[in-house]
Amino acid sequence: MTRRTDPEKPPRLDEHPGEGAVRGTQRMEIFADAVFAIAFTLPMVEIALPEPGPRFVSDLLELWPQYLGYGLSALVIGIYWVHHHFSGAIYRTTGHHFLLATILFLIAIGFIAFPTRAFAEHIHDPAAREAGAIFYTCALAATNLAWLVKWKTGCATGDVDDRLEPSYVDRLTRKYHVTAALIVAAAALVFVRWEAGLALAAAVTLYYLKAPETPVYTEQAPTVEGESD
Amino acid sequence: MTRRTDPEKPPRLDEHPGEGAVRGTQRMEIFADAVFAIAFTLPMVEIALPEPGPRFVSDLLELWPQYLGYGLSALVIGIYWVHHHFSGAIYRTTGHHFLLATILFLIAIGFIAFPTRAFAEHIHDPAAREAGAIFYTCALAATNLAWLVKWKTGCATGDVDDRLEPSYVDRLTRKYHVTAALIVAAAALVFVRWEAGLALAAAVTLYYLKAPETPVYTEQAPTVEGESD
Amino acid sequence: MTRRTDPEKPPRLDEHPGEGAVRGTQRMEIFADAVFAIAFTLPMVEIALPEPGPRFVSDLLELWPQYLGYGLSALVIGIYWVHHHFSGAIYRTTGHHFLLATILFLIAIGFIAFPTRAFAEHIHDPAAREAGAIFYTCALAATNLAWLVKWKTGCATGDVDDRLEPSYVDRLTRKYHVTAALIVAAAALVFVRWEAGLALAAAVTLYYLKAPETPVYTEQAPTVEGESD
Amino acid sequence: MTRRTDPEKPPRLDEHPGEGAVRGTQRMEIFADAVFAIAFTLPMVEIALPEPGPRFVSDLLELWPQYLGYGLSALVIGIYWVHHHFSGAIYRTTGHHFLLATILFLIAIGFIAFPTRAFAEHIHDPAAREAGAIFYTCALAATNLAWLVKWKTGCATGDVDDRLEPSYVDRLTRKYHVTAALIVAAAALVFVRWEAGLALAAAVTLYYLKAPETPVYTEQAPTVEGESD
Repeated sequence: MTRRTDPEKPPRLDEHPGEGAVRGTQRMEIFADAVFAIAFTLPMVEIALPEPGPRFVSDLLELWPQYLGYGLSALVIGIYWVHHHFSGAIYRTTGHHFLLATILFLIAIGFIAFPTRAFAEHIHDPAAREAGAIFYTCALAATNLAWLVKWKTGCATGDVDDRLEPSYVDRLTRKYHVTAALIVAAAALVFVRWEAGLALAAAVTLYYLKAPETPVYTEQAPTVEGESD
Repeated sequence: MTRRTDPEKPPRLDEHPGEGAVRGTQRMEIFADAVFAIAFTLPMVEIALPEPGPRFVSDLLELWPQYLGYGLSALVIGIYWVHHHFSGAIYRTTGHHFLLATILFLIAIGFIAFPTRAFAEHIHDPAAREAGAIFYTCALAATNLAWLVKWKTGCATGDVDDRLEPSYVDRLTRKYHVTAALIVAAAALVFVRWEAGLALAAAVTLYYLKAPETPVYTEQAPTVEGESD
Repeated sequence: MTRRTDPEKPPRLDEHPGEGAVRGTQRMEIFADAVFAIAFTLPMVEIALPEPGPRFVSDLLELWPQYLGYGLSALVIGIYWVHHHFSGAIYRTTGHHFLLATILFLIAIGFIAFPTRAFAEHIHDPAAREAGAIFYTCALAATNLAWLVKWKTGCATGDVDDRLEPSYVDRLTRKYHVTAALIVAAAALVFVRWEAGLALAAAVTLYYLKAPETPVYTEQAPTVEGESD
Repeated sequence: MTRRTDPEKPPRLDEHPGEGAVRGTQRMEIFADAVFAIAFTLPMVEIALPEPGPRFVSDLLELWPQYLGYGLSALVIGIYWVHHHFSGAIYRTTGHHFLLATILFLIAIGFIAFPTRAFAEHIHDPAAREAGAIFYTCALAATNLAWLVKWKTGCATGDVDDRLEPSYVDRLTRKYHVTAALIVAAAALVFVRWEAGLALAAAVTLYYLKAPETPVYTEQAPTVEGESD
């Protein structure tokens, strides 16, 4: 891990040679937030409004698997967003390789609504439901692995805030490794027993509804953005 | 309500244990703004351009229920955005549970254009119009309830700015409760007499065109973002 | 115009009673930027990829009116964005009524791609082209009028930066009035002679490619965002 | 190049007469980020979910050229975003003409997914593949040229940070010229031998996966955004 000489001093734009211009996390967060927001909202466009007529009410009600697809996809993307928001307080800078790892993660986020819909919208149909569940579980696992790659890259390039307690950073690393191992196991299991694989992947994802551990700093904790000492 | 020991001091990233990393409202606002903006603009994509031919002008004019759907949905989303913008000055920090409540509210915002279109685009058709009005009124009520849940969560987790006069915060809470009660009544009424239910829900929503009460602070009011004392 | 007592002091969140919580322009700009960006990019989704086959190349080339529609709509939205960016330096605060006027303007921005496509995509077809030109010119005029309403609202509510020279503000007001009068004339003319009306509306719009006058301040000009004295 | 009288002093809003109100890069970056994010995420909407039935699994698998189209387009847009993020640290201000050049570049970014899909989605079909490769290579070249125009405009209008070493700026200019020359050569070559032209354009684009040179300043390097000295 590249260490700055003095963690007390604010980072400079020309630090981390070989990483381009190191900047704060704000720009990366804005781009990521926009991708999250589009992936979150877009699946609603896919739902076609039924034609008027005597069956209009039942047509609207029969769209429930599509509403479920929207809700489920928004929930998963929302959970990742909350944690991305959290980790935005954990990173202090962003260099070239960390940004590339972020792009990889965001490609997974932009993709996830599709397998979610493949599962949710065909939930009536036994054959399609199983295939959809396999696709969905594998996509959840790929997204989680991309998250891990992003975290490991951030640690390796020194973009993680070095005012954090090393033991705190280690606990986060362990948590992300355990989660990734479980969800890869779910993606293997789903090919054998789809209900079990999907349930495990869902449990791992819902576990993230729990608040992450509040950061611990080696020195006085930084104040929130926009406030001064 | 979790109270910081000293409201005069700026909040720190490690405050509110059990809420992850508490940050300022800026990140949450950017994500929310992006979801608002997409939900606001997206319904225009649903309007298909008519084919050229002798009926092109009348085809364009006959699309008026679709233009109405876009305008109505943009108006409702716009009103909520203005109030979300307002409340962004009311909250000071964002923790894990407040973010989850925000996700719930944004799922409602991302959904609202669909029932709006279900009502507006079938406004000629008596049967579909009634079903659409019921769907639309219920969706307006659900969005309003999600707003209330967000507000109550923000109060409970101490994310509301504690420099505000407690009586001011109480007046906001009362206002949100009354509005929610009225719109839930509208959603019950709409099943009996759809015109009355829809009219009540519309009146409650349009009431929000009125400017909210200007905040009152116990100490010197904060200056606007980007300006210094 | 509501005047603050002392223009030298930074504005506070509780100023402008009756306007909700007055905040800086940043939040409004982020929402507006997102709406601009979506309206700018979205028309590309409407272009369907041709099927492969012996006519694939000519099919791609025959899509030129659709590429034109995208380019034209992006150009108009881009010009308005550049001026919105400019005026973002002209406003200092945003209150409730100014935000409502901004919503009105953004409804026009979100709509403009549709009439642009109605004109550009049917440019081969004489009858549809004329109808499209009328629709497009009226939409350009409506957008320009919404811009004027936003400006007048910002002036009336005291959200325009009061460190600007009053004569500078007056020159902007005059410019917006003249432009609005010309484009309303174009929208009247287009019903009589569509080529002339469209040409006038296009000329007024392209005039905005010219840089606006650099602001003049009564006191020392503010430094750019993110830089300190 | 317009030079400020004293590069040590922070830039002011009324500098660069004839360029409107010169502002910081933040607003431009937010708009650009939103366009990037939409162009990045939108191609997923184009992929239609197959109907359920006995062929559902193979239908999902046969969509691989579409997944490839999404991945390829997101990769190219992601690479440009990383460099745009980088260059955001290189510019210090934004004036009217630099914004217009940015609009031109963003029109190319918003367009690029379409030719990417024209190539990737028809990769099975020999005739369409060749046409798609030509279209795609030309679009990559046009995007690169728009990037160069943006850079040259920023240099000419004095929006590049004048605290940078002139020799550093010269090296960037040279790099952008060489890249543009190579990709224009690729766009010529693709008409003669499409595999060679496409390979050259891809090599030039992938070369940008390499981190750009870390900025060199004539004076003390600026600290990252949001941190103070």
